[in-house]
Amino acid sequence: MSGAPIFPSRRLRPSPFTERVSQEGVSGYTVYNHMLLPSVFRSLEEDYHHLKKYAQIWDVSVERQVQLEGPDAHKLATLMSARDLSNAEPGRCYYAPVVDGKGGMLNDPVALCIAPDKFWFSIADSDLLFWAAGLAEGYGMDVEVSEPDVSPLAIQGPMAEDLLVKVFGEDIRSIRFFRFKWFEFKGVQMAIARSGWSKQGGFEIYLPDTKLGTELWDAITAEGEPFNLRAGCPNLIERIEGGLFSFGNDMTRSETPLEMGLDKYCSLDSDHQYIGKDALLRQRDEGVKRKIKGLIMDGEKVSPLSIPWQISEAGHNAGFVTSAAYSPDMQANIAFAMLNTEFSENGQELTIQSTIGTHKAVVCDIPFAV
Amino acid sequence: MSGAPIFPSRRLRPSPFTERVSQEGVSGYTVYNHMLLPSVFRSLEEDYHHLKKYAQIWDVSVERQVQLEGPDAHKLATLMSARDLSNAEPGRCYYAPVVDGKGGMLNDPVALCIAPDKFWFSIADSDLLFWAAGLAEGYGMDVEVSEPDVSPLAIQGPMAEDLLVKVFGEDIRSIRFFRFKWFEFKGVQMAIARSGWSKQGGFEIYLPDTKLGTELWDAITAEGEPFNLRAGCPNLIERIEGGLFSFGNDMTRSETPLEMGLDKYCSLDSDHQYIGKDALLRQRDEGVKRKIKGLIMDGEKVSPLSIPWQISEAGHNAGFVTSAAYSPDMQANIAFAMLNTEFSENGQELTIQSTIGTHKAVVCDIPFAV
Repeated sequence: MSGAPIFPSRRLRPSPFTERVSQEGVSGYTVYNHMLLPSVFRSLEEDYHHLKKYAQIWDVSVERQVQLEGPDAHKLATLMSARDLSNAEPGRCYYAPVVDGKGGMLNDPVALCIAPDKFWFSIADSDLLFWAAGLAEGYGMDVEVSEPDVSPLAIQGPMAEDLLVKVFGEDIRSIRFFRFKWFEFKGVQMAIARSGWSKQGGFEIYLPDTKLGTELWDAITAEGEPFNLRAGCPNLIERIEGGLFSFGNDMTRSETPLEMGLDKYCSLDSDHQYIGKDALLRQRDEGVKRKIKGLIMDGEKVSPLSIPWQISEAGHNAGFVTSAAYSPDMQANIAFAMLNTEFSENGQELTIQSTIGTHKAVVCDIPFAV
Repeated sequence: MSGAPIFPSRRLRPSPFTERVSQEGVSGYTVYNHMLLPSVFRSLEEDYHHLKKYAQIWDVSVERQVQLEGPDAHKLATLMSARDLSNAEPGRCYYAPVVDGKGGMLNDPVALCIAPDKFWFSIADSDLLFWAAGLAEGYGMDVEVSEPDVSPLAIQGPMAEDLLVKVFGEDIRSIRFFRFKWFEFKGVQMAIARSGWSKQGGFEIYLPDTKLGTELWDAITAEGEPFNLRAGCPNLIERIEGGLFSFGNDMTRSETPLEMGLDKYCSLDSDHQYIGKDALLRQRDEGVKRKIKGLIMDGEKVSPLSIPWQISEAGHNAGFVTSAAYSPDMQANIAFAMLNTEFSENGQELTIQSTIGTHKAVVCDIPFAV
């Protein structure tokens, strides 16, 4: 984790927007679904302030689509989603935790119902395609599992809507939250959803043709000036403030949706049958032994973590921090932490060992009140 | 692909050797199985010359183990491996292409038979665990699919054996190629295999306990001086010379083992039934339409590629380059290329468009004669 750069490799796949993104001066990358994802442009804090005020254009092609298509597509989508997709309707997006037989999280995609026999799972950082394809093979389902040439481009921030209206017309305003509509660009139909990995409002454009990437980027940035548009990316500070979890950071196969407080996205009391449901019901009956909570930490500004920070209270292990950042608007260090339930009440005081020292912290709800 | 560094994230998991590796001055990283993997220390060429002459210690923890354990472990291993594992014996390693129902490659792990009911698939860069777990779920198999706390540490280079004898004793010499034996270190049993991702000879130590990482590293480096031991990593130049393919670079789900010339690792004429066999048999009957070959390219020294370079011949598309490097020992640019069969004969002349210009190239066999 020194400052060493990323070595070129075809294995880290370019996106349709790579050329434009690199021109914009990325200062830090991560790798996500075998692709490069910008993490910071000017600085975490500068990007953060800008995102909360203006509009940003984000290359989130790393949100790959796992496409299920064919007679058994709906059956497979329903089986692998803890969210009830039984009555999924075209034009809607569903935050859909996917768990294994023990309830351990494998991914937390947004499922898009493209057609009754066609679904896209817009994924977080794991090869969910392998899980879907393995299930299809094992259950002998008649469904094609593939990764189509679809790359989301997000426009986020309070000015995102006015900007996209300039490019795609007034109908943009009619898209409701977590719904999508089809818009034409250069003769190609593209799904545009009101969604995105920030709490500042915005849209995700599902570009279905790599060759049009630069043209789409340029068509949007050409209208950007009145909205102070800049290239950006998911922002660590903003997403912690807003209570957005990151698969691989805040949750792994070792955590269940109930421990993550994602109960409302899991069908537990309906007839919907899916993999892992029994395990989740059992855990609900027994009660979770730990849960994710917010923390407000004192001390110097923390830097992003690369390994979980241990949390203790009066000599007992209380859990660990999964993500942390200094929030300029809250003027405090804020964090997500997986806490043993006996230490998870709001107001509980805890001690954290970070890379820069020892912090006192207080437990609070997620999202943070910003 | 600018020189921007990797931004810290828990999602990019540390290894048991991260602390030591970063002390050694890595100058380029890649990300592999959600972990950091060094790509270069001093320079590609300096690392290369050193690897071919002395001994290197490599943190290859990214070769995660997909563990299959339980009554149906052998059944699942056999079903998902194109290599015949029907008669797999404890203590042996098997290069085992894993393909989907259409014969497309999902990974090319080394399978270790730990016990008759316990296998490790030491994987390339994709979440093979999800495929195995999906199959187990779909077929209703009685097998636990997990990623244990096992992190390979490789010692590679012509002096690797003499070095490891100093640490583990003379019995190291008795390990045959692609076999492993158990050795004790600090009271813990560790599998040591004669294997590794170079053609310079060497071993892989499967560290089964993260906490012992630094001690193991230090115990080996303490004996390193007579062998001019340095920290290293899989070397792009050396692996191309030696004909070692990289999943994600040279092959993806779009390629089959037959197109990769991996026929001898696929059971095609035995009774062994596995996923994708029918597709591979069909492709063998019809004949492959493209195949991987070596290229020797003229012109200036090439840099590592990040997108495939297109290949043409007399105005026809002939295929694409998947990996390339300048070989100091061969004093030429060498490459792997996926070629349409009509352009794949040895001696065929081709034209390549690389990032630095146009090259003339000649087709040859893999591995290169070094």
